[in-house]
Amino acid sequence: MSGDTAQTVHPDLGPLARLIGTWAGEGEGRYPTIEPFRYREEATFSHAGKPFVAYRQATINLVTGAPAHAESGYIRAVAPGRAELVLAHPTGIVELAEGEVLDQPDGVALHLVSTTVARTATAKEVTIVERRVTVSGDTLRYQVAMAAVGLPLQHHLAAELHRR
Amino acid sequence: MSGDTAQTVHPDLGPLARLIGTWAGEGEGRYPTIEPFRYREEATFSHAGKPFVAYRQATINLVTGAPAHAESGYIRAVAPGRAELVLAHPTGIVELAEGEVLDQPDGVALHLVSTTVARTATAKEVTIVERRVTVSGDTLRYQVAMAAVGLPLQHHLAAELHRR
Repeated sequence: MSGDTAQTVHPDLGPLARLIGTWAGEGEGRYPTIEPFRYREEATFSHAGKPFVAYRQATINLVTGAPAHAESGYIRAVAPGRAELVLAHPTGIVELAEGEVLDQPDGVALHLVSTTVARTATAKEVTIVERRVTVSGDTLRYQVAMAAVGLPLQHHLAAELHRR
Repeated sequence: MSGDTAQTVHPDLGPLARLIGTWAGEGEGRYPTIEPFRYREEATFSHAGKPFVAYRQATINLVTGAPAHAESGYIRAVAPGRAELVLAHPTGIVELAEGEVLDQPDGVALHLVSTTVARTATAKEVTIVERRVTVSGDTLRYQVAMAAVGLPLQHHLAAELHRR
């Protein structure tokens, strides 16, 4: 009922279909308010025959081995070359973003900027999230910039994952 | 890195730990703007040793067998007897909710009411979501009420799932 079953990939996914699979690798994070950190990540993109990709990831701290971040949600193919991201974070944050999907000879490039970031009563303030994701063959790279806790939009995360 | 690994359940989860597992069963949905429908659902609640439960579900239409709804996110244990829900829907909706967690002799009862429902540019308008979930032994029941497309809060979904 979920994941990559016998369902045919929906044609509207277009180059977003190149995300489908399980990816693992390492990344690094920084922000003025925290110590820089390195993490190991596993990310899964799956589909159920509809024009969206289900996405979830979880990371562990490379030094301590402790579970670190996680996020889960969906990437919607809404028009040729356009996608929407609908994402939940266990930190109490939800993120809606939209932007471009660029077909690449051996992959895909996404550039998504948040349209809404909302939070529960106990969560930290995040106001803007900007995501760049590229798939080139069996390598997925992403960068995340973030405006949070009163600071302007700036680099936060970079990672390189490989298809498992 | 995700799911029920060797991690010890975080003590702050309290009775929310009774959700952990995979559940399957059937439900029915209605709303004044759509035909009533019946669905089969599989839902998974997992943890990674932190004070939240990762949640995802997917349904198929019982008549056509086609994938129907899905949702994924997190339930946060924020204080004794209190939880927050952080949820993404592939329909372009994100939902933040908070409410009570009641310890029960053989389970748990949750009553969560949305504090924020936000949507992408292409999504339908949903303004309030109210969720009641009870676990009693190996049975999980839920009801969802919803205010959407200009209509007042009213019953939308009811389902009964069993632990697999």
